[in-house]
Amino acid sequence: MDRIQINPERLKADFDTLAQIGATAEGGVHRPTFSPAHLAARDWFHQAAQAAGLEFRSDSAGNHSARLTCGPAKARTLLLGSHLDSVPNGGRFDGALGVTAALEVLRCIHEAGLSLPVHLEAIDFTDEEGTLVGLLGSRALVGSLNRRELENPRGGRPAFLEGLERAGLEEEGFFTANRFHIAEPTLSTWGVSPLAGYLELHIEQGPRLVQANVPIGVVTAIIGICSYALTFRGRADHAGTTPVGDRRDAAQGAAAFTLAVRQTVLERFPDCVANVGLLTLHPGAYNIVPAQAQVGLELRAADEPTLNRLEAALLRAAHQAARQYDLELEVHFLGKHLPAPMSESAQQAIEQAAQDLGLAVMKLTSGAGHDAQSLAPVCPAGMIFIPSQEGASHSPHEFSAWEDCVQGATVLLGATLRLAYQV
Amino acid sequence: MDRIQINPERLKADFDTLAQIGATAEGGVHRPTFSPAHLAARDWFHQAAQAAGLEFRSDSAGNHSARLTCGPAKARTLLLGSHLDSVPNGGRFDGALGVTAALEVLRCIHEAGLSLPVHLEAIDFTDEEGTLVGLLGSRALVGSLNRRELENPRGGRPAFLEGLERAGLEEEGFFTANRFHIAEPTLSTWGVSPLAGYLELHIEQGPRLVQANVPIGVVTAIIGICSYALTFRGRADHAGTTPVGDRRDAAQGAAAFTLAVRQTVLERFPDCVANVGLLTLHPGAYNIVPAQAQVGLELRAADEPTLNRLEAALLRAAHQAARQYDLELEVHFLGKHLPAPMSESAQQAIEQAAQDLGLAVMKLTSGAGHDAQSLAPVCPAGMIFIPSQEGASHSPHEFSAWEDCVQGATVLLGATLRLAYQV
Repeated sequence: MDRIQINPERLKADFDTLAQIGATAEGGVHRPTFSPAHLAARDWFHQAAQAAGLEFRSDSAGNHSARLTCGPAKARTLLLGSHLDSVPNGGRFDGALGVTAALEVLRCIHEAGLSLPVHLEAIDFTDEEGTLVGLLGSRALVGSLNRRELENPRGGRPAFLEGLERAGLEEEGFFTANRFHIAEPTLSTWGVSPLAGYLELHIEQGPRLVQANVPIGVVTAIIGICSYALTFRGRADHAGTTPVGDRRDAAQGAAAFTLAVRQTVLERFPDCVANVGLLTLHPGAYNIVPAQAQVGLELRAADEPTLNRLEAALLRAAHQAARQYDLELEVHFLGKHLPAPMSESAQQAIEQAAQDLGLAVMKLTSGAGHDAQSLAPVCPAGMIFIPSQEGASHSPHEFSAWEDCVQGATVLLGATLRLAYQV
Repeated sequence: MDRIQINPERLKADFDTLAQIGATAEGGVHRPTFSPAHLAARDWFHQAAQAAGLEFRSDSAGNHSARLTCGPAKARTLLLGSHLDSVPNGGRFDGALGVTAALEVLRCIHEAGLSLPVHLEAIDFTDEEGTLVGLLGSRALVGSLNRRELENPRGGRPAFLEGLERAGLEEEGFFTANRFHIAEPTLSTWGVSPLAGYLELHIEQGPRLVQANVPIGVVTAIIGICSYALTFRGRADHAGTTPVGDRRDAAQGAAAFTLAVRQTVLERFPDCVANVGLLTLHPGAYNIVPAQAQVGLELRAADEPTLNRLEAALLRAAHQAARQYDLELEVHFLGKHLPAPMSESAQQAIEQAAQDLGLAVMKLTSGAGHDAQSLAPVCPAGMIFIPSQEGASHSPHEFSAWEDCVQGATVLLGATLRLAYQV
């Protein structure tokens, strides 16, 4: 097995080409789901797959796949991948590294003419970051997408429908893309070969590997995540004539809540995180007391009971802030992804692949959500992390040393070969 | 003089017609400066002036005037007016009542064929509310507009330029509209007859007249106002992987400042007001720690030393909030209107006109800014207030009893006739 090597120059060329698509002045990329830059990145994947002599397919959820038929006729498929969409004004590594590495692993095995007990598929999942919905393509693929989420998507229904239009997709396609709905999968049919497992290479997006000076992270679980849109409602008044003490100022409730979110986490949930990433005042004028404040809240925890307790504590804080400033509070639940443990067999395959290369590993949880959590309930799923300089991510300052990227891709190749024989 | 009466039905018809232009579902109007609805309201004024047999003129600052030449050849002009723009999703009375009443006063005097020691002019001032700049037309008219304000207008430079385009105006026009720049006003030339004074009828926009059950307010001074755009800058990070304690979260600084604004006013400046009416987070996503928070601040005080002390206290609070959360702070000064005392002669004319009608008066300051403060430094200026139900304003809930509106217009007519003989 150690004779097959990934080609670092070819991987670098792919990575750099992608980093130019939607490149920002600050050195990152801006590729929100179905933006022109994101569609261009998807086209790049399509062409790269075909240029590598791999089969290409896009499913009705917009997932793009490159497939290598390297197993026996009835073999299952081992999936490798990540996503090409980014958060607004995000970084070059998040998602793109995992997709280019997956493609490179398939090319290496294809070039080596290797036969495996499984087929291989490299996938670029739709809307991992949640510009529109979040983990959209991977959940469509496993059939865990909720119809109500598409009615009230976190990016707003109009943006969702406009995005589908631009990508040439239909809403119903997110439900027909489910590979597990097919009653009797015929193994010869592309796309319905049962999944043998899922592996994803990703940057850590946090500081732990860098701080421990360890090159490879083996993810034990992906933490759970929950999001809400909260609206504080007060009364619009003239800001020059209404005494401050008489106001029902929605900005005050939103501000008190924003501070309470941080305090609650620091004081009572030190292993969790929460974020107020959106805040808008209406009507939004210098001389009008805000009648409405819309707040976007996201919270994360490593296990389900803690996630539920944090959720309850933050909603209590929102109600308390509303009461304190004589406001009404409207609570919209947007969605919840439960914490997802990674499979033991995938973790072992990654750990052994790293050991084969003499690379130290660190077991760690993922604070970020990933498509691997969609796959975890239906097949053995595993994730490889590489160090993120300064722990920065979802930012143009996101950076990983290229040596770490290559080592990560090499571990992905080794883990693929090991897992292919275990599943 | 008591034989001349305003025509309440005609005034009501005008008022109701205007309330339909840009009407909102909540019962208010949405006529931001140079919006289609605002331009339609201006067109209405133009047509109403001509239908009443008055001369019409618009100046290079977009101010619309109806003129009644009722004085001797060399007479000065007594100006009556207000504005037809509204705050976003505002009320029907703010500005519109003063313009329709001014027009009605001119029509009554025109119909009565009265000769006065002055000419009369009813004016609809451009952008009183500050969608773009604030008191824009009235300050252009008296020559107190600052060129830098147009370079960095509070509504944003692109919105300002687009607005001018829609209204068919040019930026330079705001400086040539100055009636006091003309070296030797020739009295026969429209628009350059020197101003004898300015009177404005307006709703109180506060609760004092209603609480005291007094129908007419005589404004003694308009309080000073000052506004800032503040930007708190931190660092964008992944909201799932960056520990809360390690963040440089701009939302926290903005929230702490928003609460501090209210506390500072309540504890140390009980006679002043301040408002955080705008707050935006960037990049603005659920899963990104906010790198930037933009905050719109406005503060008001009745005298200049207090205004300066409040301004300094709130800027200190902003710097302190930035330091507390390891943020940078960018401070943009947007503008300041000093407190403006109303003239004694105008106050007397209003008080006597109310007494003639047997109406009780209350002397009070205006917490809101008005075009009268632009005129106060250059001619005797006065304001008549009528009661605002629940003190509500800059809101669709703004409401004044029609009887109070008619009494206000009647006092405006009486004060106009009295002041015409005094100035």
